Amino acid sequence: MLRALGQQVIYHRSSEFKELLHDTAAMLQPLFGTTAANPIVLTSSGTGALEAVLANSLRPGDRVLTLDNGHWGARFGRLATSLGASVEALSSSWGGGADAEALRRRLSASDGGEFVAVLVAHNDTFTGAVTDLAAISDVVRDTSALLVVDAVSSLGCLPIEVDSWGLDLVVSASQKGLMCPPGLALVTASEKAWKRIDKVDPRGEYFDLRRARDMAAQGQATFTPAVNLVRALHEALRMVHETGLTQTFARQAHLGRALAAGVAELGMSLYPNADAASPCVSVLRAPEGVDAAKIVATMRDRYGTQIAGARRSRLDGTVIRIGTMGYCRPDDIRLDVWQLAGAVQEQGHTVDVATAIAATERELEEVAA
Amino acid sequence: MLRALGQQVIYHRSSEFKELLHDTAAMLQPLFGTTAANPIVLTSSGTGALEAVLANSLRPGDRVLTLDNGHWGARFGRLATSLGASVEALSSSWGGGADAEALRRRLSASDGGEFVAVLVAHNDTFTGAVTDLAAISDVVRDTSALLVVDAVSSLGCLPIEVDSWGLDLVVSASQKGLMCPPGLALVTASEKAWKRIDKVDPRGEYFDLRRARDMAAQGQATFTPAVNLVRALHEALRMVHETGLTQTFARQAHLGRALAAGVAELGMSLYPNADAASPCVSVLRAPEGVDAAKIVATMRDRYGTQIAGARRSRLDGTVIRIGTMGYCRPDDIRLDVWQLAGAVQEQGHTVDVATAIAATERELEEVAA
Repeated sequence: MLRALGQQVIYHRSSEFKELLHDTAAMLQPLFGTTAANPIVLTSSGTGALEAVLANSLRPGDRVLTLDNGHWGARFGRLATSLGASVEALSSSWGGGADAEALRRRLSASDGGEFVAVLVAHNDTFTGAVTDLAAISDVVRDTSALLVVDAVSSLGCLPIEVDSWGLDLVVSASQKGLMCPPGLALVTASEKAWKRIDKVDPRGEYFDLRRARDMAAQGQATFTPAVNLVRALHEALRMVHETGLTQTFARQAHLGRALAAGVAELGMSLYPNADAASPCVSVLRAPEGVDAAKIVATMRDRYGTQIAGARRSRLDGTVIRIGTMGYCRPDDIRLDVWQLAGAVQEQGHTVDVATAIAATERELEEVAA
Repeated sequence: MLRALGQQVIYHRSSEFKELLHDTAAMLQPLFGTTAANPIVLTSSGTGALEAVLANSLRPGDRVLTLDNGHWGARFGRLATSLGASVEALSSSWGGGADAEALRRRLSASDGGEFVAVLVAHNDTFTGAVTDLAAISDVVRDTSALLVVDAVSSLGCLPIEVDSWGLDLVVSASQKGLMCPPGLALVTASEKAWKRIDKVDPRGEYFDLRRARDMAAQGQATFTPAVNLVRALHEALRMVHETGLTQTFARQAHLGRALAAGVAELGMSLYPNADAASPCVSVLRAPEGVDAAKIVATMRDRYGTQIAGARRSRLDGTVIRIGTMGYCRPDDIRLDVWQLAGAVQEQGHTVDVATAIAATERELEEVAA
């Protein structure tokens, strides 16, 4: 994939690039679970594309409901606010997915007709919880509201079924489950979404999804795209399909479980509810009496391993966050458990490393190296 | 540079990336001719950044004057229109730079106070003409209007002096003079520009320049940036500074002149006025009786060389356009002249290749291989 990235630049209006972009979109379709939507590739971060779908479907003053079960749902709402929408947050407890029942109650109070869009994050990387999109969609699909999904960190790690779940606007990016360098964002839109977008005056040109759709239909990007990143994405998708989607998702789940099983023996429990625990990111409570921020610092300073705390959130100091998405191998999990054992011990906490290793290996037996 | 591109991705909040971004901004300053402005790196195409500077400095209904001397000045105006500005175009003849005297007359009729911004393209790649930004700035700097410059195709090829010329907002991109793959855009803003931007409500977050400025001051990108492209840009800038800016610009000018001298012997004259001819792109009239579109097709089909016609413009069919910006070597010029001779001959036109070669070599004597 990095070899693909480092190749000579090709002209973005050449037939060679056209074919590359066409194949890339075709290989994205099964990941999004769609044959109806033609995924659009934008040159921006995921945030840029989240903003793009909101700017193309909302007019200033439009009412929007955001499902706030962690960091990203709340932030998605703030993005809509920055574009002039009137945003209401429906909060549910952290550690679980967004609450479909609470959503049903909120929408049935008003038939859902007051909201132009419902915003939801598929996989919250701050709490490590996955939202059941099919359940959310069951509530939204019969209303006039669009269901808008932040799938930045989940595409390629978790099944997404745009067509059968009825997801109207879905946004992802190149650098998470797809293992690529950052710089590309991906968007799908349903017929219901296009009907809305066609009625809203576009703001600006760069993120004008109508133009992007028309150009994509010709196998073109609207503006000069990050050509080399498209090539890297193409190669990453080829690798994913070579492995197979079912196998990719199963492998992802085993890797996540292996990490959780190993660190459980170090006294670290998963923060999210068991039924919502994400396979792409493990959010772990520090053992009693151990400072999570110090674990992050030890991982970085002693082992050169970058893991995350939960800065700028209410979990700061209490949890650590480890991404296991994309290009992650069993040896990465082994090293994580090993190093976390060291980091916990450094704070005077005794751990049973042999048991942690055995627990990790039991789950890893299911995964090919 | 491509080696730099293909390296392993680094975490965009790491101190290693911070240093990379800081050094990149520092190396960009001499290219922009500024010590006052801290260049901002955005993950988008040039168009995205042109839209960003307009969206951050204009309110809907604001009056804007765009200098229309070719394709890009007119397009810059359309971009402002798409954001709700009220745009007036000041047209001058194609083939010359934007007309400073006409601008003086237009602004003195109203003290210039009615326009929030004057938009100008530095280097029009459709006509091959360069605008004298110092002359334009002399007219705009004492008005309340901001001078907003599209330098997408000129940065790194042509001198730009943000501080001494008083350019308020300047936009460029990674893939032209800077020899990098596309995907990054670059922005500088003057104090006058920031004063304006601080008064305008930002639209959205992705292109919010105030946030980008505050993050850049900490050596950070606002959102996840195209990390590998930043590394490639860093390497390209290192190469430019190793050669030296004066030498880079002189080399660029010699390459452009060598191409023009060679093809003149094939009956192809430069389209732009002699005093405005761009060294970064050669726009050439096809010889009498020769179809420009067929030259482009022959170059592509027989030689595999991608040059451009002037589709979607009034020059369509009459000129060809050859970029000589960025990573261009004397051998590229030699091949261009050779292949153009073949393409012209293919249409039954006799050419004196030996004379064309001699004329090319006279100019190339000044350029190191």
